[in-house]
Amino acid sequence: MPDPTTSPERGFPDKEFSERTAKAQALMAASDLAGLLLMSEQDLRYFTGFHTLFWQSPTRPWFVYVPASGKPIAVIPEIGAELMRRSWVEDIRTWSAPAPLDDGISLLKDLLAPMSKERAKIGVMKGHETHLRMPLGDWEQLVSALPGLDIVDVTALVQGLRMVKSPAEIEKLGHICGIGSATFAKVPEFIHSGMPLEDVFREFRCAAIRGGADDAPYLVGAADQGGYADVISPPSRRPLRAGDVLMLDTGCTWDGYFCDFDRNWAISHASEDARRAYDVLWRATQAGIESAKPGNTCRDLFQAMSAVISEMDSSGGDIGRLGHGLGMQLTEQPSHAAFDRTVLEENMVLTIEPSLSYGDGHMMVHEENIVVSANGATLLTERAALELPIIT
Amino acid sequence: MPDPTTSPERGFPDKEFSERTAKAQALMAASDLAGLLLMSEQDLRYFTGFHTLFWQSPTRPWFVYVPASGKPIAVIPEIGAELMRRSWVEDIRTWSAPAPLDDGISLLKDLLAPMSKERAKIGVMKGHETHLRMPLGDWEQLVSALPGLDIVDVTALVQGLRMVKSPAEIEKLGHICGIGSATFAKVPEFIHSGMPLEDVFREFRCAAIRGGADDAPYLVGAADQGGYADVISPPSRRPLRAGDVLMLDTGCTWDGYFCDFDRNWAISHASEDARRAYDVLWRATQAGIESAKPGNTCRDLFQAMSAVISEMDSSGGDIGRLGHGLGMQLTEQPSHAAFDRTVLEENMVLTIEPSLSYGDGHMMVHEENIVVSANGATLLTERAALELPIIT
Repeated sequence: MPDPTTSPERGFPDKEFSERTAKAQALMAASDLAGLLLMSEQDLRYFTGFHTLFWQSPTRPWFVYVPASGKPIAVIPEIGAELMRRSWVEDIRTWSAPAPLDDGISLLKDLLAPMSKERAKIGVMKGHETHLRMPLGDWEQLVSALPGLDIVDVTALVQGLRMVKSPAEIEKLGHICGIGSATFAKVPEFIHSGMPLEDVFREFRCAAIRGGADDAPYLVGAADQGGYADVISPPSRRPLRAGDVLMLDTGCTWDGYFCDFDRNWAISHASEDARRAYDVLWRATQAGIESAKPGNTCRDLFQAMSAVISEMDSSGGDIGRLGHGLGMQLTEQPSHAAFDRTVLEENMVLTIEPSLSYGDGHMMVHEENIVVSANGATLLTERAALELPIIT
Repeated sequence: MPDPTTSPERGFPDKEFSERTAKAQALMAASDLAGLLLMSEQDLRYFTGFHTLFWQSPTRPWFVYVPASGKPIAVIPEIGAELMRRSWVEDIRTWSAPAPLDDGISLLKDLLAPMSKERAKIGVMKGHETHLRMPLGDWEQLVSALPGLDIVDVTALVQGLRMVKSPAEIEKLGHICGIGSATFAKVPEFIHSGMPLEDVFREFRCAAIRGGADDAPYLVGAADQGGYADVISPPSRRPLRAGDVLMLDTGCTWDGYFCDFDRNWAISHASEDARRAYDVLWRATQAGIESAKPGNTCRDLFQAMSAVISEMDSSGGDIGRLGHGLGMQLTEQPSHAAFDRTVLEENMVLTIEPSLSYGDGHMMVHEENIVVSANGATLLTERAALELPIIT
């Protein structure tokens, strides 16, 4: 069992939420926005602190409205009222959900009708990496009932705020990265040749949870002779064999914040190709870490890593990017890709995640988690070994 | 470690997917639908078998198109191509994602342009318990580029199919319910007065995983003197104390299928009120189980349970319903609620989940999982003890 005396505090003081809201409202004022209507788990949690696994049920929609001034207003199912009352939010409007004919829509209409009358501008999340977490039919009904509203996309505004972490958020992220690192360090103790990959996954999950993670919701990986071919499959019961390269990639959570990184091992012995791929990726990762300075762009990071990867492979495995933001979600904006010119700022938390293809259809991935500091990157994860570790 | 020889086979034979598709196509023909455009994890998995935790990243959209005849067509990020090629799907169209300016939209336009030209009818999920798992802005762009399409809601069609499980699905659901039952049976062995609730959660998760669950992604619960007040919070570090009522509610998974049920215990001793609430709920659950026969409606189940609950409480705790469907999601259609007149059919898998309020702001929940059989309900879970169990 983890020692709670070494864990950060759970939750945040109200000040964290009032500061987030004030920053949003300053940006809203600059864009003449009367309010933001948000509905994803992370966006609600960001502005209210409302934290529950209940979101795993798709049945009920949940809403928060951030007005131009004052505290956010929650429009949520009654089942969440007790938990929301413990947050800093005061105006909590509830309905008895599920109610297929009116799942919060009347409450939203009442809230937004004055803005519609004034032909005000309202922001919603419509852009890259967002979803509409309510029925599309309900959304269409809401929009048609409020014809005066000028509905605009505020993805850049909200994701821009969420990209730069507070000290308390960085503390939580550092804590779960530390737990992840300690769990990876234990892997050679509990795996062995002959162990089915499915059992490796079970042992890893329990080791992470016993080591202090609240959960290990994301765990993918693969193992095969000389290298693996895909990085998103569930585990099979194929036993680990001498000559396999094993990769585990995990998103563990603590207090609603994720780590997201991976490690590679060879079972008994490693091919020359696999060792070389590992070396190239280690150095590509290093190049990414060294480029992660305020003022550089995500594109710069991508290019720094790509330059090293191209020693061995020009495609990069077609993963589409070489890392991303990290926080309340396993993957957040920005993307280390040629298309992303986001300028790095202090206190962004990022994954550095180069990949390459090699040999006969093999691929390899590497990943570390960092926080951008004034003078460069600070590692949140314990850096992977310089050479492909061999488990005997 | 679980004994794999007692587990069902993972995955499904191709026949399962061809039968699901044929059933959908028969219903589509009756509604003059040219195709279904689907994008949720469960809907993709239902028609293709594509199964990965990679959906936890919100970055990339994934699509499947079910045409009026023939196999489904996958329109997915290149990172998933290797895994999709192992499915029964043949027509796999990919792009290098993420690509914020064109995340699959051109591919969808190419696919749907002929249908738009013919002014054909296309189904999407727009109804209760569904979300739009792609950026709203991309959806608006797609719709405006295909002005001839008649886009209609097919929530009832798809959820109607998914509600009735195949024998192979029921086998998986029975397997994970058995693992959940065995885990709950072990709880008295690993908890004790003085143990922080957070540690109870850790032990429970590891016990479930070591007992054979792939994961325990959903775990909520509470403990307090004489009863608990909310059922959706993360655990605190408050230690269990004599006089507490403890409740754990879990959704464990095996091969992508969920159990969803809970158990209550008293620590050292139980109040008269808590024992009575437990007894009322046990009998309400029994009434729900006995009503779960083909031909009865979800409303009938709700009323059968409500009649018992009203012995002690008239509000039902305002959970909004007293159970729901179960399968690839923790909660699926239908709902045991006054508004839901879904007629029960053989092979529906359901939760029976009465709740009530009692005493000074306490609530209690009970839950079992069943499959509707020709002559009535068959329990998938091991029935909860007749009286509130006391852990000494």
